[in-house]
Amino acid sequence: MEQLVLQEQLRYLIDNKTKPIGALGRLEEIAFTAGVIQGTTRPAIVNPHIVVFAGDHGIAATGLVNPYPQEVTAQMVLNFIRGGAAINVFCRQYNIELIIVDAGVNHHFDSVSHDRFIKSKMAPGTNNYMSAPAMTVDFAEAAINRGKQIVSNIAKETGCNCIGLGEMGIGNTSSAALIMSAVMQLPPEACVGRGTGTDDRQLQIKINTLRTVSAFHELEKCHDNAIQLLSKIGGFEIAMLAGAYLQAANEHMVIVVDGFISTAALLLARLLNPDIAKQCIFAHTSGEKGHQLMLDYLDVKPLLNLEMRLGEGSGAALAIPLIQSAVNFLNEMSSFEHAGVTNKV
Amino acid sequence: MEQLVLQEQLRYLIDNKTKPIGALGRLEEIAFTAGVIQGTTRPAIVNPHIVVFAGDHGIAATGLVNPYPQEVTAQMVLNFIRGGAAINVFCRQYNIELIIVDAGVNHHFDSVSHDRFIKSKMAPGTNNYMSAPAMTVDFAEAAINRGKQIVSNIAKETGCNCIGLGEMGIGNTSSAALIMSAVMQLPPEACVGRGTGTDDRQLQIKINTLRTVSAFHELEKCHDNAIQLLSKIGGFEIAMLAGAYLQAANEHMVIVVDGFISTAALLLARLLNPDIAKQCIFAHTSGEKGHQLMLDYLDVKPLLNLEMRLGEGSGAALAIPLIQSAVNFLNEMSSFEHAGVTNKV
Repeated sequence: MEQLVLQEQLRYLIDNKTKPIGALGRLEEIAFTAGVIQGTTRPAIVNPHIVVFAGDHGIAATGLVNPYPQEVTAQMVLNFIRGGAAINVFCRQYNIELIIVDAGVNHHFDSVSHDRFIKSKMAPGTNNYMSAPAMTVDFAEAAINRGKQIVSNIAKETGCNCIGLGEMGIGNTSSAALIMSAVMQLPPEACVGRGTGTDDRQLQIKINTLRTVSAFHELEKCHDNAIQLLSKIGGFEIAMLAGAYLQAANEHMVIVVDGFISTAALLLARLLNPDIAKQCIFAHTSGEKGHQLMLDYLDVKPLLNLEMRLGEGSGAALAIPLIQSAVNFLNEMSSFEHAGVTNKV
Repeated sequence: MEQLVLQEQLRYLIDNKTKPIGALGRLEEIAFTAGVIQGTTRPAIVNPHIVVFAGDHGIAATGLVNPYPQEVTAQMVLNFIRGGAAINVFCRQYNIELIIVDAGVNHHFDSVSHDRFIKSKMAPGTNNYMSAPAMTVDFAEAAINRGKQIVSNIAKETGCNCIGLGEMGIGNTSSAALIMSAVMQLPPEACVGRGTGTDDRQLQIKINTLRTVSAFHELEKCHDNAIQLLSKIGGFEIAMLAGAYLQAANEHMVIVVDGFISTAALLLARLLNPDIAKQCIFAHTSGEKGHQLMLDYLDVKPLLNLEMRLGEGSGAALAIPLIQSAVNFLNEMSSFEHAGVTNKV
């Protein structure tokens, strides 16, 4: 359908439901967006998925930026596989399919087998970017392509048209903060937050460390180059996230953006596809400092503010039922005419 | 269990789930609150209900305060019964039982029969409170008791322990604004909003009308008397709502508070049970002006802000799955110890 005609039809349908105009607030916007993404006045959410990419960061071994030790990444991956993490709880509740991807965890999962666990390890963690690039340019490109392939397979195999992307990786708030700092051209201290449980002293060390890293890699010189940024200070999970966003957009999926790290990965995907945010619904405002600045930069407003700061795609999982509610009201509510309800006098 | 011991145990359980402390934000508060209300470390949401009380207002016939004609109340009740309204869509999606109550609609529903429709009409609408009390004191008390009885029956028949209360009534934002004005001792103009679709000129007429009504009934003299306020400027649906809140508290239910009118009814219930807000979870901030002031007055923070202003319990319905998510993480997530995940160093 021609875009303008579709948009007019969606507006008409939304406005003629048995409710005052605008009374469903943000849900009206979401219904409209879902219709535009899917190119139809009867959008549907089919087989929603959350994909959690996990990866380790060389810098985490230094203990300079993270209060949890690096082995927690692998432990949490096992927790995801066993169904004990927050994201498992929410996906079960909302009938969301959960896929876990080893993008580059510093652990052998050879003995682990699970039909929703994708082994796609690039390497057992990135290099410590304090003294070297986190990964080669080839690896950055390959990781992006693997992220694309994973989403492409999900679309092909399940018909999924709504995807939330999450991550797990001890130390990855630092990588995300450096990406944010470079892309948005802000000093690192404006982008660095407490991550998961950093105290005042640790926060100052984290800031100093990232200032040093930013200067060492001359990040300001590649602020618009996603591959360079990934190579210098990225993570394998972040690279696959960026690829996953790009492919989800190609597949005309409704993309549900989670928190701080996921949004940083979107900043990279956006360097490669400037229109990508149009296909995104922003799930929530993270409690991690810096997320609000990224949202402002993208000029978007998330659905939820539950003061969560967990990652794992947990905010995206809680937003998916609201997106479903938006689509449902568009498809199921009666119009004034149909219900015999008198419209405004 | 002794209250303090229970609260300590809940904190311990919440803090030892496999996530950084506080990382589930508001959901952690909700899990805690649900545990305290139910007096257990393993709260459960059983058979959640939304009850929508509908009633007409004498003043609506004047057209001074409402852009929609009075017959819309009855038309929307029929829409609820046929399943075509927003609240139907959301209750279907989230497996919430929906009960509709004719508290005092200006329409005969004799030919309508539905097992989720309770005929409890006090009268075919209130008197026009511009020149007389909206109802007698006896009717106000009787309507409160009917609201109590309805909730008591739901608890007895279904074991429901989580209830959202909604309303429908053309003109009832005016009654709610007058209640708010009296209880919070604010001038009517601070409490009057656009309701459902009022324009600038209509808004000024609404303000002037309600100032006249407030003065006529000398509302400031009965600011702490729920029965007097209901008698003078209440509505049958608002009286039943107040009774429903009181009984839900007696039944130790998790009470989910919807928007502007539902919160005004809670202000009345709170005059009769000052502790009632402790058992309430506030679903959302309504787009109706004045709701934020009420929430500030109660010193509470709602879960959602989706800029909705529909009533019908629609905000409450969207919050119930989040309450379920909170209870689920408490019951289902692994602890650090159980999952073999290393806690903070």
